[in-house]
Amino acid sequence: MSSASARKGDLLRLSTLFVRTLREDPADAEVASHRLLLRAGYIRRAAPGIYTWLPLGLRVLGKVEAIVREEMDAIGGQEVHFPALLPREPYEATGRWEEYGPNLFRLKDRKEADYLLAPTHEEMFTLLVKDLYSSYKDLPLTIYQIQTKYRDEARPRAGLIRGREFIMKDSYSFDHTDAGLDEAYQRHRDAYERIFRRLGLEYVIVSAVSGAMGGSRSEEFLSPSPIGEDTFVRSAGGYAANVEAVATPVPDAVPFDDAPAAHVEDTPDTPTIDSLVELANARFPRPDRPWTAADTLKNVVLAVTHPDGTREVLVVGLPGDREVDVKRLEAALAPAEAEPAGDADFAAHPELVKGYIGPAVLGPQGAQVTDPQTGETRSAVRYLLDPRVVPGTRWITGANVQGRHVFDLVAGRDFVGDGAIEAAEVRAGDPAPDGSGPLELARGIEMGHIFQLGRKYAQALGLTVLDENGKQVVVTMGSYGIGVTRALAALAEANHDEKGLAWPAHVAPAQVHLVATGKGAEVFEAAESIAQGLVARGVEVIYDDRPKVSPGVKFADAELLGVPLLVVVGRGLAEGVVEVRPRAGEARQVGVDDVVEDVAAQVEALLA
Amino acid sequence: MSSASARKGDLLRLSTLFVRTLREDPADAEVASHRLLLRAGYIRRAAPGIYTWLPLGLRVLGKVEAIVREEMDAIGGQEVHFPALLPREPYEATGRWEEYGPNLFRLKDRKEADYLLAPTHEEMFTLLVKDLYSSYKDLPLTIYQIQTKYRDEARPRAGLIRGREFIMKDSYSFDHTDAGLDEAYQRHRDAYERIFRRLGLEYVIVSAVSGAMGGSRSEEFLSPSPIGEDTFVRSAGGYAANVEAVATPVPDAVPFDDAPAAHVEDTPDTPTIDSLVELANARFPRPDRPWTAADTLKNVVLAVTHPDGTREVLVVGLPGDREVDVKRLEAALAPAEAEPAGDADFAAHPELVKGYIGPAVLGPQGAQVTDPQTGETRSAVRYLLDPRVVPGTRWITGANVQGRHVFDLVAGRDFVGDGAIEAAEVRAGDPAPDGSGPLELARGIEMGHIFQLGRKYAQALGLTVLDENGKQVVVTMGSYGIGVTRALAALAEANHDEKGLAWPAHVAPAQVHLVATGKGAEVFEAAESIAQGLVARGVEVIYDDRPKVSPGVKFADAELLGVPLLVVVGRGLAEGVVEVRPRAGEARQVGVDDVVEDVAAQVEALLA
Repeated sequence: MSSASARKGDLLRLSTLFVRTLREDPADAEVASHRLLLRAGYIRRAAPGIYTWLPLGLRVLGKVEAIVREEMDAIGGQEVHFPALLPREPYEATGRWEEYGPNLFRLKDRKEADYLLAPTHEEMFTLLVKDLYSSYKDLPLTIYQIQTKYRDEARPRAGLIRGREFIMKDSYSFDHTDAGLDEAYQRHRDAYERIFRRLGLEYVIVSAVSGAMGGSRSEEFLSPSPIGEDTFVRSAGGYAANVEAVATPVPDAVPFDDAPAAHVEDTPDTPTIDSLVELANARFPRPDRPWTAADTLKNVVLAVTHPDGTREVLVVGLPGDREVDVKRLEAALAPAEAEPAGDADFAAHPELVKGYIGPAVLGPQGAQVTDPQTGETRSAVRYLLDPRVVPGTRWITGANVQGRHVFDLVAGRDFVGDGAIEAAEVRAGDPAPDGSGPLELARGIEMGHIFQLGRKYAQALGLTVLDENGKQVVVTMGSYGIGVTRALAALAEANHDEKGLAWPAHVAPAQVHLVATGKGAEVFEAAESIAQGLVARGVEVIYDDRPKVSPGVKFADAELLGVPLLVVVGRGLAEGVVEVRPRAGEARQVGVDDVVEDVAAQVEALLA
Repeated sequence: MSSASARKGDLLRLSTLFVRTLREDPADAEVASHRLLLRAGYIRRAAPGIYTWLPLGLRVLGKVEAIVREEMDAIGGQEVHFPALLPREPYEATGRWEEYGPNLFRLKDRKEADYLLAPTHEEMFTLLVKDLYSSYKDLPLTIYQIQTKYRDEARPRAGLIRGREFIMKDSYSFDHTDAGLDEAYQRHRDAYERIFRRLGLEYVIVSAVSGAMGGSRSEEFLSPSPIGEDTFVRSAGGYAANVEAVATPVPDAVPFDDAPAAHVEDTPDTPTIDSLVELANARFPRPDRPWTAADTLKNVVLAVTHPDGTREVLVVGLPGDREVDVKRLEAALAPAEAEPAGDADFAAHPELVKGYIGPAVLGPQGAQVTDPQTGETRSAVRYLLDPRVVPGTRWITGANVQGRHVFDLVAGRDFVGDGAIEAAEVRAGDPAPDGSGPLELARGIEMGHIFQLGRKYAQALGLTVLDENGKQVVVTMGSYGIGVTRALAALAEANHDEKGLAWPAHVAPAQVHLVATGKGAEVFEAAESIAQGLVARGVEVIYDDRPKVSPGVKFADAELLGVPLLVVVGRGLAEGVVEVRPRAGEARQVGVDDVVEDVAAQVEALLA
C-alpha cells in the first residue's frame, strides 16, 4: 500500500506534520503497542478492529512492507495482487464458504450474487496458476502479494494484533514433486528468518498443526511476548512448539496380568476428584503407592459441530489431574468445532450419568447401548482417549450409576477407546516429545506461519500439470503468511518503555528526532541548518520546529514517537554544542559544526 | 499497494516470469485496453468489474502510483490510509448511506452492525481532521491516500475503466478561508497537470458540475478517447466543459407588445412535432418566418425521487427540436433521481393530457388546478423551463385538451415557470457560453476530478476550528481524485496499435525487451551478457530467454507486451551486430560491443 524509500533523506516538520499526540492512555487500549501507537499518533481507530493509518504509522508500515518484499523477491517470489472482494464460488468449491462460519464477512451485490471479503487467498492463487500454467516445466513457482485481508473476529483485541481489516503478505509455492515443496518450504523458512532479523524482532520458530488449512509440515514464527495470544512450549534441549502441536509422549504399556479385577463401589460424598481420591486411599488403597488424581479417568462430554452442520456428542477420556485445553481440542477436531455438551445433549443420551460417566457405555464397550429409558439399543457415543491411557494403566472412573465408581479398571483389558486425541492441557514440566527435557510454557504473538499445504487445494480446484512422462499430476503447494500489520504491532510491543515507543532503526519513521528548544531565532536557524545537512546526507529527520511549545512537551513527544536518535539544539548553542543521545541512552555534547557528520555516521552504523 | 523503483535495474526472464500471453481476443473484452491488458497477461478477471494484477501489470501500476505520490508530496500532501471497510454512521450523518443507492456495497458484521465498502472517503477524512485539529493555525492541510475503493456498478465495463474494485488517489484540502481553498484547488490543478504530463497522457480540463458531491468550482481531467463514457464540449476559443456543466447562453428577451394574442386551435392528425409544424405553417403562418420545431414547446413529464424517498411529478419545458439529456437532467436534479413518468403518475395528474400538455395547468399558471375528474382543487406540478424560453418568445404548445394546441403563447405574458433547468441536450454547433465560438462534441475517459467541496461535509460532521478572533468557524474543504487503475487503462487505450500495447517509457513494466533468437548457445550467452550489462546500468529488462520458442512467437509477444525498446540478438551476431528498434520504429544494427552503451543512453533519454 505504501512505498518506503530506504535512504532518501526526508524532513518532517512537527509544525505541519499531520499528527497529534495524546497525554492520556485511550480507554479501550489494553496493551502497550496499541496504547502507544494511538497516543503517538501512528494510527486511529475507525471501527472495532479497523484502523486508519496516519503519516507516521504509514511510514513504518511502508518500511516493514519493503523488507518483506525484498526478501520475497530475493527467493524468486513474483508479486501479484488479488482483489479483496471475491465471488463465493471458489470458496464453495473447497468448502471454506461454510467452514469459516461467522469469521467471514459475506455480502451480496446488486444482483444478489454472493461475495466475501477474503480472509486468505488459497483458492484464488490456485485458480490463477491453473489458468496460466499447464506443464511441470513451468514449475517451481512462488507468487506472493501484500494485501488487505478481512476476518470478522468475535473479539477484535489489542489493536493491530487481532484486527478485522489487516495487511498480510501471503505467498504460495507450486511444485510437482514433494522434494520441490520441501525446498520451497525451506527457502521461505530462511527468508522469514532474514525478514524478522532485519525487522529487529526476536522470534521463536515453533512446530504447529495446520488445523483447518490441512496439509503436513507447518511452523509458526512467534514473537515472545506476555500479551501474545499463542501459548508455546520449549525445552532447554531446543524443542519448540505451539501447544496445539505438542504430541504427548506415549508411556510404555504396563503388564496387567497381576492387576486386580475391576470392582464397582459406592462412593458417597465425593463431589470432587480430590474427595474421590481421598476416599479411594482410605477404603481401597493400592498396595504399591497411593492413588492420585492422575489415576482417575475423567470423561468429558462434548458437542461437536461438523462442517456439514451435523452435531455429534463425543466423549474425551483423560487423566483427572488435567483439564481439556480448548485450543488443542479445536486443533485436533478441526474443521469441526466443539463446545461443552448442553442439557439437550445429555437428554438425548440418558446413558451418560453426569459425574459418573465411565467407559462401559462409551465407544466400543457401549457399541450397542440399551437406552435405560426406552429399552431400545443403538450405537454408543464415540470415545477418544488421551495418549497416556495406554494398555495396563489402572483407573478409578465412573460406573454410570449415581453415587458409584469403578476401581482398578484396566485399559486394554476392561476397555478401549475409538482412538486417541490430543486434547489435554500441556503443563510446564511435561517432558518434551523429543526427549530434550522438561517443557516450559511461554506466550507469543504469531507473526508468520509456513505450511506444507500439499495437494488439498490443487485437488479440489483441479490444478494439474503434465509431468515428464506426459501424465497429468496434481500440483503440491505451500502456503506462507506474514501478518504485516501485526508484525508492526509486535515491534512496538517489543520496543517500548514507560515513556513511549523505541523503534529499531530500520523501521523507525525517521532516524533522527531534532528538537529546537528556546526562543531565540539563532536556535531555530541552527536547528534548520542541521536538519538540512542531515537530509542532504540521506537521513530522515523529524524536526520539532514548533515555536511556542515548551521543551518538556517536546521531549515527551520525542520519547513517545520513539525515533532512535535525539538531537537537541538549545542552551548549549551559546557554547557551540548540541546534545546527541539515543532514544534510551546517555547524552553526548557534540560541537555544532561536527554534529551533522557525527549523527550521519551514527545513522549509517544503525542501518548497516 | 506496490512500490516502484524508478532507476533500479531489474531482469525479468520470460522463461520464469509469471505471465502467459493469449493469441485470441477474450470474448468479453470490448475495448482495446481491456483486450490487450488481458492478452498481454497484465491482469486477469476475478469477477465482473474485479481484476487480479499479474506481475507485469503490478509493475506498471506501481509506477503510476509512484508518479502520483511524488507529485502529491511535492505540493505538501501528507499520505494517510483509511480502511475500505467502514461503519455506517458517518455516511448516515451526511445522508450518503441512502443517497448512494444500489451503488454501495453494504454488509453486516457478526453483530448485525451495518458496514459499507467505501466508494469515497469524504466523511472519514473530515472526521479525522476533526479528531486531530482545532485551530486555524493547524491549517492549511492537505492529506491523501492511494487506496482500494468499491462501487457496485450496474454495468461494469471496459475492464479497468469502469470496475467495481479499483484504486484511487483521493486527497482533501482543509482551510479556514475561501482564499485558502482557492489556493489549495489551484495547487492540485497544477499537480494534476504535472501528473498526467509525466504519465504521458493527453488530457483536457473541462468544467464540471459536482452533482451529488455538492460544492462550487469543479473540473475534470479527461483523456480524449472515442471509448470514453464522458461527453465533453470544446470551442475553438478554448472553452471546454463536461456536457453536464454547459450553461446554455440565455438569449435576450424579445419585446412582445406586437405579438398576437394566444389562440387555441384544433390540430388533428399531428402525431409528431414535424406534422404539427407543417400544419402550423399551412394554417397559421407567422408573418416574419416559417414556424420550426424550435418554436414548439415540448413539456416532458418526469417522476423525481428525492433522497428522503418522496416522489414528485415534475414537468420540464424545452424547445421541441431538442431532447432531454438524461445525464444533464440528473446533474441538475442531483441528489434526486429522475425517470420518465409512468402510468400511475399520469393517473394521479389527470390534468396532464398526454401529447397535449401546456403551461396552463403547470406551475404558477396552474397553482390551483381543478381536477377535471373530481372537481377538487390542488397545487399544480412544478414546471421548470429551458433557459431558451425567455420572455417574449412565442410558442406552439399543448392546450391540455386532446387534439388541440395553443399558438402564439408568449413566455412572460401568457405563462412563466417555477424556475430554469439545464436539461436539454447540447449539440455540436451550439454557441459556447463564454462566446468563444461554436461547440464541438468529443468523448473522454474521466481520469481526475477536482472539486471545491466547500463547507458541506465540515458542516454536517461538525468540523470547526478557532479562527484568529477565537471564534469557531466551519472549515472549507476541497476534494481531489485520480482514478489510478483507470488512468492505467487510459494509458493503454491511448498507447497501442493492432499488434499490442506501446507504453510510454515512464510507466512501461521495463524499458527494454531483449529477444534471443536462434538455437546456438552463443546467442543466449551474448544476450545474457547484454542483459546483465543493461541491468548494471540501471535498466529494467524483460529478457526472452525461452529456449524452444520460435522467433515469430517471441516478436509477437514483444509487440504485445509493449516495452519501448526492442533488442534482438540473432542472425546478425555472426557479423557482430544486434538489432535495436523502438516499439514501433525503424531497426538499427548496433555492434554487439556497443549495444549496452547505446541502449542505456537511449533509455536515459526516454526517461529524462
